[in-house]
Formats: sequence, C-alpha cells, structure tokens
Amino acid sequence: MKSQFYTYIQNLQETITKALEKEDGGASFKEDIWERKEGGGGRSRIIENGNTIEKGGVNISAVHGPLPDSMQAYFNVGKVDFFACGLSLVIHPKNPMAPTVHANCRYFEMYDTNKNRVDQWFGGGLDLTPYYLFKEDSRHFHEQCKKACDLHHPAFYNTFKEKCDTYFYNKHREEARGVGGLFFDYLKADETFTIKDRYDFTTTVGDSFIEAYIPILNKRKNLDFTPENRTWQEIRRGRYVEFNLVHDKGTLFGLKTNGRIESILMSLPPTVQWCYDHHPKQGSKEEELLNILKNPKSWV
Amino acid sequence: MKSQFYTYIQNLQETITKALEKEDGGASFKEDIWERKEGGGGRSRIIENGNTIEKGGVNISAVHGPLPDSMQAYFNVGKVDFFACGLSLVIHPKNPMAPTVHANCRYFEMYDTNKNRVDQWFGGGLDLTPYYLFKEDSRHFHEQCKKACDLHHPAFYNTFKEKCDTYFYNKHREEARGVGGLFFDYLKADETFTIKDRYDFTTTVGDSFIEAYIPILNKRKNLDFTPENRTWQEIRRGRYVEFNLVHDKGTLFGLKTNGRIESILMSLPPTVQWCYDHHPKQGSKEEELLNILKNPKSWV
Repeated sequence: MKSQFYTYIQNLQETITKALEKEDGGASFKEDIWERKEGGGGRSRIIENGNTIEKGGVNISAVHGPLPDSMQAYFNVGKVDFFACGLSLVIHPKNPMAPTVHANCRYFEMYDTNKNRVDQWFGGGLDLTPYYLFKEDSRHFHEQCKKACDLHHPAFYNTFKEKCDTYFYNKHREEARGVGGLFFDYLKADETFTIKDRYDFTTTVGDSFIEAYIPILNKRKNLDFTPENRTWQEIRRGRYVEFNLVHDKGTLFGLKTNGRIESILMSLPPTVQWCYDHHPKQGSKEEELLNILKNPKSWV
Repeated sequence: MKSQFYTYIQNLQETITKALEKEDGGASFKEDIWERKEGGGGRSRIIENGNTIEKGGVNISAVHGPLPDSMQAYFNVGKVDFFACGLSLVIHPKNPMAPTVHANCRYFEMYDTNKNRVDQWFGGGLDLTPYYLFKEDSRHFHEQCKKACDLHHPAFYNTFKEKCDTYFYNKHREEARGVGGLFFDYLKADETFTIKDRYDFTTTVGDSFIEAYIPILNKRKNLDFTPENRTWQEIRRGRYVEFNLVHDKGTLFGLKTNGRIESILMSLPPTVQWCYDHHPKQGSKEEELLNILKNPKSWV
C-alpha cells in the first residue's frame, strides 16, 4: 500500500503541475528534492510570478522513523515508528477574482516496537478560498467534490463537506477560511470498507482536483480588477496565514516532525497585509463574501 | 497591587503614545475601548500610516474571571479564577533601516474557589528586531536594558537577556526573531525579593522603553532606502508573523482567553511577503543580519 500510494502521488504531482503550467502559460515549476535527517524526504515543485499564478506549490513527501515526542502526545500513543506520505498543494493566483485553492491526500502507518504495522489510514481533501464570491464557481467546485464522493458512498459528500467546514475554520475570527470542499482523515479499514476501498476513494478525490479547479482559474484569471480589489485580496490572504500558522494540523505536523520548512510554508501567500480592525463597506462585494464565510452554506 | 499596577500601565500608555506621536510627526493614535464578555476589557491605541510609523499599537488591558480550560492545562492548575493586566506594544516603522520594537509588562493573580489569592507574579521585557544591522543601535538598546536591570540586581541583565534570546527564537527557522533585549516571567515574591521589589523592577523596565527605542527610531527614520531594502524588510516581517502566530505565548494566551482579536493581532506587520526559499547574497548586509540572528551575541 505504501509503494502503491507513493507511486500514485508521484504521478498525480506530474499531472497536476503540467495542467497548472499549461493554464499559467508563463512560469514553470521549479523542483527541489530534499532529504529528512531522521528518514525519508520529498520532491517540492514551486511556481512563482507566473502569468496567472503568483505563487504555488505542489509537493510530495514520504517520511518515516520514530514518531517525534510531540506527535506521540498528539496521537495519544507511546514510542512508535511511523510512515507518512502525501501530496499537498496550494495555489495563490495573482488576480483577486480567482480563488486560492488547497488540496491534499495522505497515507499514514504506525508500527509497534517489533516493526509490526498496528495502524494505517488515509486522509485528504480539497477546498476553495475566494476573495470575491462567484456562486457558480463554488457550485462547480462542490459538484466535482460530490461527483468524486458519490462514486464511493452516497453519504460521503455530506459528511466530508461538513468536516471541511468545521476544520477550515478560523475560530478566533469566527469565520470559515473559504467556501469549503472536502476534508477527511483517519479513514481506516472497518466492517464496511477495506483499506483498498479507502485508497480508491482517496485517489478518486485526488484525481478530481484538476477538473474542480482549473476551469475556475481559467474563467477568472483575466478579469479586470482595481488596486482596492488587490488590497482586499491581501487582507484576506492574512486570514489564510492565520489559519495555517495557528490552527492547521498539517502545518503543525510538518513543523514538529522536522519537515522541510520551505516546503511546508510554501502554502503562505506571496504578499499579505494586516490592517487594524478592517471592515468592508455595507452592501459591498467584500461584505457579501464575509457573510458567506460567517455562515457556511450548502452549494449543491 | 492590582490597582497600583493598572494605574502604572495607564500612565505608561499615555507617556509612550505621546512620545511616539511626537517622533512620528504625522499620524496620531486612535483609541478603542473594548470589553470582554467574561470580565474586564482594555484600551487599545493604534497608529497607522504615519510619517515614520507604518503600523503600531500600544495596548493595555485588564481581564479576569474563570481561567479558561485551555489555560488550566497550560498553567497546570484546576478550576481557578484569574486576573491579568498588562501593557503590550509593537511598532513597525516604515523605513527598513529602522527596527521593529516590542515591549510588554504584565501582572497576574490566581485565586482558589474561596476567592483567596493563591499566586501572583510579574512579567515583561522589551526586544528589538532590526532589518539591517546597526551595531550601535543594538548596543544602545541593550545598554538601556542593562541600566534598568542594574538598578535592581547585578545578575538580572544577564539572566533576562538570555531568557530573551531563548524565548524570541523561531525554532523552525533556527534563528532569533531579532537582536533581543530582556524577557522575564513568573517573577514572584521569594526569600530575596518581595512582590513590591518585583513591581519596582517591572516598572523600571517599562520606564526604560522610551530611552531605549526613540533615539534609534530618530536616527534611522529618514535614511535612504531602495525597493530591495523594502522587499527584505517585508520578507523578514514574515518571520515576525511566524513567531507571533506559531510560538508566542502572549498571542496564544490572548486567543485562548477570548481576548480582543484586533488588539492581539495589532502586532502583525502591515505588509508582508513570503518568497520560496529566499537566501540573501553572500557578503551582503542582509546576510550580515542573518548571521547575527543565527548566533545571538553579547551587546554590552
């Protein structure tokens, strides 16, 4: 399963970076191969200052070794070994009318002191963070999410859509990071699903990314915008930073397992602003977005 | 002690905001009074887009009530009531040659279920975060820190200077946030010091801020700079954000005690950049700063 899934994410990285380069039409991804002292490593692909994409990364990694102390407490286990591999991507378009997107899929194993595997699970998802609300974009994104889910179980979309709304939530701001999508974790084998079923579902979701996002980017990347639109985008990007550094378990996991800092923090936007106590004008497009983020809604 | 210290920080806020407004010569502080649902509140003073100060805040607050669950775990206590008051300031100058500064002084009390005070302590400090290194500025800042400490105990400066280097450290980057200063916490009454001694020391440090920082701001605020200097400043400000959101216990305490978000996050810089894997040129001024941050040194 380890090697099957790692092969999958290698191919997915290839497909996605090619599709994004084509859509960007200017810059190409720069590749960095890195090793982790305690075991494993990764292949980061970063794009900056493209025609369309201001900054983005599509990274894969596979790390293993003794589970760090801080993560033992987190998983409520003793001294164990672990293996984790996954693909993680974040795309920050230049145009404030085009949304930021994040997607991730991952596989985790844990071993006892005799190197026997004692646990294994899949996780992943994708979610959209617009700066201006185009309802048809949110609908399209969620339709693709639902389509992927429905291939596997009729309850999956609602369950994982709700988990996404709950997870990508800036509690200290009382607002969602974006308009959501899917989030799932700890998908283990049980009475209903084999681990192969979990693999199939996770990879279907991974495969859905291109169709879920690229058409949106394509529609919005050349829209007109004002300096005020750009300021709003940078202020909202600040909320993205707050979520990733304060609340995101993936970032935390990376920082605590001595992951490669530059690969983990590629998720942070290229330019960001923090204004004191900023409030959009009543009845504005900016306020319309905020209202949606305060009250996550159903899109399909 | 509660009311004595609160009166002190009210006056200190007044003195410091006046001195900063005078030095800025353009903008003035905007005041916001806020209340905390669970008890207490504060008075925030924020300055933005001044001649010299791009963004800054000098905030006081006094909050009380039941200690939130998350903080019980942090302090390793059960259900107790608390009182906390303090002044916290961060100044982000516009000119990249002028350093960012942070200062704080605080007083904390804890009570048992019968409302008896069971613990009380002081904390505080000040620290400097330059974007370009002027050794005489770091020396001046530390001399003022040492002067304040030496009035109270010959060991204080070295002890609290080291604590500052340890505390304001971006572990995930393996570099200090800046060139340090003083940091102290949990200063309680003991065999050597009364709580009044702790009060006297904390307020001496609070009083030292103006002389420690304003002359530096004055010397650097009108120096010439290039767009490249400004980019470097914004990249380094990103490290400031990383420290405050990932590591800073003060920010965490604020977020977890349902503090006022805009007052807590006033510490975040106005404009920030994250570039992938940025490295300064060999032998550059930027690299000179990084070398100092990687190896905190003695300044006096």
